[in-house]
Amino acid sequence: MKRRDFLLSTAAAGVACAATSFTPAFAKPRSRLRVAMIGTGMRGQSQLGPLLSRDDIELVAICDTQQVMLDMAQAIIEKAGRRKPKEYGGNGDTNAWKKLLARTDLDAVFIVTPWELHAAQSIAAMEAKIAVACEVVAGITLQDHWDVLRCQQRTGTPYMLLENVCYRRDVLAVLQMVRAGLFGELVHLQGGYQHDLRGVKFNSGNPKEPYNSGVEFGDKGFSEAQWRTRHSIERDGELYPSHGIGPCAMYTNIHRGNRFTHINAFSTKPRGLHDYILKHPKGGPNHPNAQVKFKLGDVVTTTLRCENGETILLQHDTSLPRPYSLGFRVQGTDGLWMDVNKGIHVEGRSPPHKWEDAQKYYDQYDHPLWRTFADKAAGAGHGGMDWFVVHAFVEALKAGDPMPIDIYDAVAWSAITPLSEQSIANGYQTLEFPDFTEGKWKDRKPIFALDGRY
Amino acid sequence: MKRRDFLLSTAAAGVACAATSFTPAFAKPRSRLRVAMIGTGMRGQSQLGPLLSRDDIELVAICDTQQVMLDMAQAIIEKAGRRKPKEYGGNGDTNAWKKLLARTDLDAVFIVTPWELHAAQSIAAMEAKIAVACEVVAGITLQDHWDVLRCQQRTGTPYMLLENVCYRRDVLAVLQMVRAGLFGELVHLQGGYQHDLRGVKFNSGNPKEPYNSGVEFGDKGFSEAQWRTRHSIERDGELYPSHGIGPCAMYTNIHRGNRFTHINAFSTKPRGLHDYILKHPKGGPNHPNAQVKFKLGDVVTTTLRCENGETILLQHDTSLPRPYSLGFRVQGTDGLWMDVNKGIHVEGRSPPHKWEDAQKYYDQYDHPLWRTFADKAAGAGHGGMDWFVVHAFVEALKAGDPMPIDIYDAVAWSAITPLSEQSIANGYQTLEFPDFTEGKWKDRKPIFALDGRY
Repeated sequence: MKRRDFLLSTAAAGVACAATSFTPAFAKPRSRLRVAMIGTGMRGQSQLGPLLSRDDIELVAICDTQQVMLDMAQAIIEKAGRRKPKEYGGNGDTNAWKKLLARTDLDAVFIVTPWELHAAQSIAAMEAKIAVACEVVAGITLQDHWDVLRCQQRTGTPYMLLENVCYRRDVLAVLQMVRAGLFGELVHLQGGYQHDLRGVKFNSGNPKEPYNSGVEFGDKGFSEAQWRTRHSIERDGELYPSHGIGPCAMYTNIHRGNRFTHINAFSTKPRGLHDYILKHPKGGPNHPNAQVKFKLGDVVTTTLRCENGETILLQHDTSLPRPYSLGFRVQGTDGLWMDVNKGIHVEGRSPPHKWEDAQKYYDQYDHPLWRTFADKAAGAGHGGMDWFVVHAFVEALKAGDPMPIDIYDAVAWSAITPLSEQSIANGYQTLEFPDFTEGKWKDRKPIFALDGRY
Repeated sequence: MKRRDFLLSTAAAGVACAATSFTPAFAKPRSRLRVAMIGTGMRGQSQLGPLLSRDDIELVAICDTQQVMLDMAQAIIEKAGRRKPKEYGGNGDTNAWKKLLARTDLDAVFIVTPWELHAAQSIAAMEAKIAVACEVVAGITLQDHWDVLRCQQRTGTPYMLLENVCYRRDVLAVLQMVRAGLFGELVHLQGGYQHDLRGVKFNSGNPKEPYNSGVEFGDKGFSEAQWRTRHSIERDGELYPSHGIGPCAMYTNIHRGNRFTHINAFSTKPRGLHDYILKHPKGGPNHPNAQVKFKLGDVVTTTLRCENGETILLQHDTSLPRPYSLGFRVQGTDGLWMDVNKGIHVEGRSPPHKWEDAQKYYDQYDHPLWRTFADKAAGAGHGGMDWFVVHAFVEALKAGDPMPIDIYDAVAWSAITPLSEQSIANGYQTLEFPDFTEGKWKDRKPIFALDGRY
């Protein structure tokens, strides 16, 4: 079925199936996709699950600079009973991804590399007419985001940001509540990334214990500690905005009749990471890393205002001991939801001035996507969210539909980082938010998760 | 005992007890105080409870512009079996408070009037050497706050802001936790005033139904609806900062080794109050008040940064349906507390990445004040907080001690309102926070609730 479907589909498109004249999926609806993955680290390996579970995906190539990561990925692929993809890199070759993108048979590429590589790799893929599924974030600098946007506009290659939290079950149920008008007219929203990442930013460097195992990073670390920690040393801002802003942007129809107009950010002193090194059994004041100066404030508070008069508050908090919380709040003229206390209050339905347990609302407003696909998503990473975000990209691409989280969403959500850095560096000054749509936000219509297809 | 104590005390001070040569309490420690109250509306009546319960207080005068309020106050006083105080005002005379302050036998005055009167009345009282217990806020404009400060500095008359939330049982327990270092070095705090006041800002105007009874305000309203609602029409800012900032300022030792350095505010569109008028059975689109334009954004988000590197987030949210929450969060290098979910996480004590129920911490760290006085406070307004704030003022004044919530606290906390208004009006721009202490914050030491006395 597998290869044959692809051939039939290609034949149906009236195109000879020679590698040199391969027509990408988005040029014509297709039932099966040939995909590659750049970056098969811990996150890439996690995303293999949803991909390998699909009959409409043929994973033909993988790329990483580290052989250990390629080996771990191949083991997962073999265990899933799928054909072994061609390997690129593995010998420390940081240009191997370019060889992968030189293939002429790819419909799509998943970019699951360190943040600082996303923009260049996305641009190269789009230039090669290979649809891009990019892990958050889209780029680093503000210019990166304009570059990614301009490339997408110039090439027309589909690009989707893989923001999985938009597909969290409660988040999607709340989207249904918002669309049903349960909260009335929205006025204020909150989200964030409040996750104690100290045991991720530091480890022992041993691939067998990637978490909570030491105080090393950079060359002596492993996985995210190799690259992510450096951002905490060199940058001060809302470094990971999309988990929080993604759902809030969906709720407020950003780029579909609304847009961000202002942004401000404050940060606290940096204490948590240094303190972690001091307190850790393998650290202490004499460990060399106790001398490292961290720039990232432990808590970064970002406030946005929207064209339609809403405010959105984002909180970034990854260097202190704390329970995980994305801190969502969705508030309108008729009530509000908060996830930290799993509470909903709806005027005329809830007892006055009282919270109700949100679960009964989650059940009532469960999104058709979850009603349909909960079984398939079960077991995929992050409580099933990962399955849905991959599903959405694959299905939209096969159908030739617009991407549900598209280039405007990707660059505006991601640009919160460099804009917040600029705000903080300028003494917490408020900035005007660039309109990446250049006015098109006024007429675009919502498409995200409108039905139970993807 | 009562009058005699006073005479003895005065005699001990070596001063003849003639009205014209009355020496105020703060000039010499005293065991009993002669006090007056300006403003005997709903809040003033509520504060009579703690005052009338005390043997060391003689309430000698009350003042209000409305006879109905004076009558209600006298009924409470009579029911408590206390001597009837002299009445001022009651005939609409808006200058009656000046006659009250012309008395020469007052140790202290409680100012419980509409916000816009606090500054002028406080200044007049301080000029007359009558110690001031002022309900929140200290003033309206930034200049008001400088004026109140300069008057206090010039006259030396004691002045305390009656911020009762500083004395909430969990808030004081958390102060003990902070002082014990439970959360490590503090980095981020939150507070606010999130309270659906729609049924307070509007009523029917009938004194028998002051809450949730209609959509009238101003001349047609009653109690707070007569004056407070106008602030929502004319102003856009953090209108009620002290309940949130008071505890946060105590936790971070503001003006005692720390100070606010920057402030920023954002506000949403105003929808809630208009919507309430439309939805109310006595309102509707044809009610005259449906034409009123409100200026106050439904949710106002204020961010402050402190000299020592902490950030403090305040949320003002009084025009939408919602459960009451002051939204506290106190976070440091070793853990955090949040009140919305009544959760605490302390590294090394709590299970990793998990919340614990805060109650057991509240019990363990219960403040000596509550351990000592919980029974006396029981039944006083706002869960006993009101008893403690009155107690603190009275005891500090009797002892000739510095006020626990003093003039610098009062003006800095209250000035958040005009500064937030200015920030919003200037396109959400960040402002430098004035240093009302003019450098004295560096050397001042914490005094608030250091022991179980007051």
